[in-house]
Amino acid sequence: MEVGFLGLGIMGKAMAANLLRHGFRVTVWNRTLSKCDELVAMGAAVGDTPASVVAKCKYTIAMLSDPSAALSVVFDKDGVLEQIGEGKGYVDMSTVDAATSCKISEAVKQKGGAFVEAPVSGSKKPAEDGQLVILAAGDKALYDDMVPAFDVLGKKSFFLGEMGNGAKMKLVVNMIMGSMMNAFSEGLCLADKSGLSPQTLLDVLVLCLVMQHPCCYFLYYQIKQPWLCFDLQDLGAIANPMFKMKGPSMLQGSYNPAFPLKHQQKDMRLALSLGDENAVSMPVAAASNEAFKKARSLGLGDLDFSAVHEVLKGTGGQAKA
Amino acid sequence: MEVGFLGLGIMGKAMAANLLRHGFRVTVWNRTLSKCDELVAMGAAVGDTPASVVAKCKYTIAMLSDPSAALSVVFDKDGVLEQIGEGKGYVDMSTVDAATSCKISEAVKQKGGAFVEAPVSGSKKPAEDGQLVILAAGDKALYDDMVPAFDVLGKKSFFLGEMGNGAKMKLVVNMIMGSMMNAFSEGLCLADKSGLSPQTLLDVLVLCLVMQHPCCYFLYYQIKQPWLCFDLQDLGAIANPMFKMKGPSMLQGSYNPAFPLKHQQKDMRLALSLGDENAVSMPVAAASNEAFKKARSLGLGDLDFSAVHEVLKGTGGQAKA
Amino acid sequence: MEVGFLGLGIMGKAMAANLLRHGFRVTVWNRTLSKCDELVAMGAAVGDTPASVVAKCKYTIAMLSDPSAALSVVFDKDGVLEQIGEGKGYVDMSTVDAATSCKISEAVKQKGGAFVEAPVSGSKKPAEDGQLVILAAGDKALYDDMVPAFDVLGKKSFFLGEMGNGAKMKLVVNMIMGSMMNAFSEGLCLADKSGLSPQTLLDVLVLCLVMQHPCCYFLYYQIKQPWLCFDLQDLGAIANPMFKMKGPSMLQGSYNPAFPLKHQQKDMRLALSLGDENAVSMPVAAASNEAFKKARSLGLGDLDFSAVHEVLKGTGGQAKA
Amino acid sequence: MEVGFLGLGIMGKAMAANLLRHGFRVTVWNRTLSKCDELVAMGAAVGDTPASVVAKCKYTIAMLSDPSAALSVVFDKDGVLEQIGEGKGYVDMSTVDAATSCKISEAVKQKGGAFVEAPVSGSKKPAEDGQLVILAAGDKALYDDMVPAFDVLGKKSFFLGEMGNGAKMKLVVNMIMGSMMNAFSEGLCLADKSGLSPQTLLDVLVLCLVMQHPCCYFLYYQIKQPWLCFDLQDLGAIANPMFKMKGPSMLQGSYNPAFPLKHQQKDMRLALSLGDENAVSMPVAAASNEAFKKARSLGLGDLDFSAVHEVLKGTGGQAKA
Repeated sequence: MEVGFLGLGIMGKAMAANLLRHGFRVTVWNRTLSKCDELVAMGAAVGDTPASVVAKCKYTIAMLSDPSAALSVVFDKDGVLEQIGEGKGYVDMSTVDAATSCKISEAVKQKGGAFVEAPVSGSKKPAEDGQLVILAAGDKALYDDMVPAFDVLGKKSFFLGEMGNGAKMKLVVNMIMGSMMNAFSEGLCLADKSGLSPQTLLDVLVLCLVMQHPCCYFLYYQIKQPWLCFDLQDLGAIANPMFKMKGPSMLQGSYNPAFPLKHQQKDMRLALSLGDENAVSMPVAAASNEAFKKARSLGLGDLDFSAVHEVLKGTGGQAKA
Repeated sequence: MEVGFLGLGIMGKAMAANLLRHGFRVTVWNRTLSKCDELVAMGAAVGDTPASVVAKCKYTIAMLSDPSAALSVVFDKDGVLEQIGEGKGYVDMSTVDAATSCKISEAVKQKGGAFVEAPVSGSKKPAEDGQLVILAAGDKALYDDMVPAFDVLGKKSFFLGEMGNGAKMKLVVNMIMGSMMNAFSEGLCLADKSGLSPQTLLDVLVLCLVMQHPCCYFLYYQIKQPWLCFDLQDLGAIANPMFKMKGPSMLQGSYNPAFPLKHQQKDMRLALSLGDENAVSMPVAAASNEAFKKARSLGLGDLDFSAVHEVLKGTGGQAKA
Repeated sequence: MEVGFLGLGIMGKAMAANLLRHGFRVTVWNRTLSKCDELVAMGAAVGDTPASVVAKCKYTIAMLSDPSAALSVVFDKDGVLEQIGEGKGYVDMSTVDAATSCKISEAVKQKGGAFVEAPVSGSKKPAEDGQLVILAAGDKALYDDMVPAFDVLGKKSFFLGEMGNGAKMKLVVNMIMGSMMNAFSEGLCLADKSGLSPQTLLDVLVLCLVMQHPCCYFLYYQIKQPWLCFDLQDLGAIANPMFKMKGPSMLQGSYNPAFPLKHQQKDMRLALSLGDENAVSMPVAAASNEAFKKARSLGLGDLDFSAVHEVLKGTGGQAKA
Repeated sequence: MEVGFLGLGIMGKAMAANLLRHGFRVTVWNRTLSKCDELVAMGAAVGDTPASVVAKCKYTIAMLSDPSAALSVVFDKDGVLEQIGEGKGYVDMSTVDAATSCKISEAVKQKGGAFVEAPVSGSKKPAEDGQLVILAAGDKALYDDMVPAFDVLGKKSFFLGEMGNGAKMKLVVNMIMGSMMNAFSEGLCLADKSGLSPQTLLDVLVLCLVMQHPCCYFLYYQIKQPWLCFDLQDLGAIANPMFKMKGPSMLQGSYNPAFPLKHQQKDMRLALSLGDENAVSMPVAAASNEAFKKARSLGLGDLDFSAVHEVLKGTGGQAKA
């Protein structure tokens, strides 16, 4: 199978290399052409412009750094639009906002081409290992054609239906994450003020997740029933990576921003708006959102979203990044 | 090390057997004496009464079915109190309320004995495998003496300080669990009403938990850094066993009670009371509690606590167990 | 003082008549000219078009039925814009959305004219009695010029600053009203389920408001200290007209729409958005909004906003208008 | 009608005097007997002990300062219990907790006597003017016998049913008041942060309440339709004494304790507990309670309950009494 690939940043290079390793014929393009060398050494062809890549390949994948790059590659001179058309497909795997996706989608479709948005979950390492999670939406036929490529790039791809559903899915997940963070922080505060060690709570919460992997491993590979090894009565039932990774720094009042609080709050707000449109009552998310807003009002917006812990601790925002 | 063991129900028998297998000398007692036979075959001695077990052993462990059994074994004729005293320790591992624990503790201490409450997390299988989590509180010196036994019975034991802290820790954990369940349910509802498949949301949420075990296994055993394999940007960051296990049945509106909703709501109430005593503001737990109360008012109290999903779906309680 | 007056509906006619009675010279216009007759009999002049009224008068007031009428009178042929300019002022007292106000404001200012938005609180009777409350914003100099007219039309006018502040003030008031309605409904439900008569609660809540008027009257007119007569320890401290008027019908489950629930919920949403922009945490409004959303999801959006009571009662929406 | 009256503090003296002025024969008792002089001058008889008052009078009213005084007067030597019995009634109008009321009630009933609890709303001035609001519960026949006295002492008395319902009614009212205070504070904060003057919001909110009294007066006395004068579309619909009286000091950050925040929060907690018992979901009260708890954690518990405004303003508690 032949594909074009536009954008060879950290993610894009890993993904294109992966396709090459799995026998795809890949024609790459990057704004700084020298970045193509490594992939040429692996067997890739090079296109001079996005347009020439699209001219050559039936399917073209893009993995760009931000919305402006995503738009530029499509709409600028020598861009995708000049060659896209009937029988050709364009797949944008960049993480962009819904408006950007829709603008590209409409332009491509007007030219007769097919479009799929397919943002991914996962960073460099999963990209190299082909372990991304792919949230695709748009043209179903094009998605079906791309499955062999998605199978190489990700451990799993989802087709979510119409354009925009990828962004919505991320909002729902982030809303759950934001409420869980608040629940977690409240628990840590309650433990602390009630004379329990929050560090012990942390140990109790995440204990089982670490320890049960070996048996899970066995069950998963030997008898294909990985969940037998979990016991709901077990305190590990709600163990999750976030508690494990964020907990210790929260107890130290340290909030190095992996996901800035102001972005988390924006996603909560958008998720609540989505709920409003559809008349879904979500009181826990609403309460969580107000805590994030309080954190913003205390000047914590640029810290990690776990800094909402400062609101609940009631220290009035003496937090550090 | 020699220990007495009172109560050979499902849990108690597995625990006593575990101690025998690890070289402990164990004197057992059970109300129905025939239940002792299997353990005698493994090398256990038998005591006629709780009092005679305590008379013989420096340390006695109890694992009884409920508060009334726990009280009876201590206070009735031929009970623990008749022989407990200076130099002897009594460890109650039953799951009982705080009042019961305190009553036993005071009586034992008045006789000069030492007392530790040590409720466990985990059911039959973890009991057999010595994989319980033990939440202990009370006399620290006795706890220290018991560590060899706890190491056999559990994968981990925590000493939580003064009497009552075990119960408090369970409340904090259950409070977090209740809020997470609400967050989860709100997310499922939002997905559904917004045109996304809740089943897909479920797949997205739990995907990584299943798949990443193999690599975690490697990392844990080979380089002792199990958490390297998690990627917070990853959608799997909030994956947890509860979402995985409860999600599918919630989507079917089926709520077979593993943990009855009325008990979850009671624990939320008690956790909020604990917060009230200590002036800890917990708005997300409060919102979650109101949802559980609403579920109770709809007659869902005897179903699983995941039945709060019916409140959020707004179906008015057409749920099934 | 001479003013133009555009729009002689129920409100406009009462207001223009009021101005005439107080010695203003008024030139009126209405789409259906016959509606001018009554005012001509009181001494009004008539303009053929909005443009001709503006041409004649330094100040022109409009009181139109909706945004489209407000826009039409300004932008259509023979509209306000054709004659507005340096030295002339236009005051729109219609209740319109912020976008409509801003569009008119910009057009008028571009022509060199001055503009004030001045929506009113109060309906026909207060309009006739000159007892409106006027929430004005925009050009301060024009507002100052209009004070003599506002003094006649209303019992009180407020200048709220820049354009849009009138709409914001209404949002804040409606947000408080929405939360109060929820608090009230929760109280009625709690009384009912706790074995108290909700009717008695109603009596207790509003008792003092009715009964204390006579003494207030005395105090207000005789010694100018109307508030002496209130006693905060008194159960009447929170008495308010809304509880009095809505309570009885809520207890009957009857919700004839004075203010439709969907509009109340929209205002709550907009108020919360305003809070979000300004990082104001408002957990009670957020909880109230979720209750209104729940009501919408039960199909109660077209009933009165007091129908949120059905959500809290948990009857699943068997309400009637 | 003849009544005994125990307790001549500020309230009790005013009430007993009121009864005398309306032709009741009153036998008074007070721990410090000299306090009886003024009433003797008005025609009262004096009893040496509570017991002797009860011996003489068919009905005895008590108005004591606190629960311990209320208990002492009944249970101590020469107390009410020594003479109460078949055919005699005892009415305690003190403000005491439910446990105290119940203890007195049971003791009186065991002796064959009848008991009514009848706490009042209103302080010295309403007591003097016979304008108290009386929340009675207990023995209905005794209540009926007391109506002539209640008619003199209060502008209105309510019979609320079984013992304890008076306390419950107060909880419900205070719960609504607490949520309203939060709604109010959120509105003031939103106005402030959105560029509106909170003082203007205050003016808008309470405007109509002051101004409309004269017309209400007329309507109430002349045509017995006091509510005609309210207009729901009017911004005054939610006007209430609390907003008027508390608003200005809240804007100054001044919280002289009329009703201490810790007591308000306690009442919110008890109201939520009452809701929990009866499975009433009250999300707005729950959110309000968490704000009060936050205020307590900031050390504001001894200030007025309006100090919750400091939590919402986010100043971290630089409040003054």
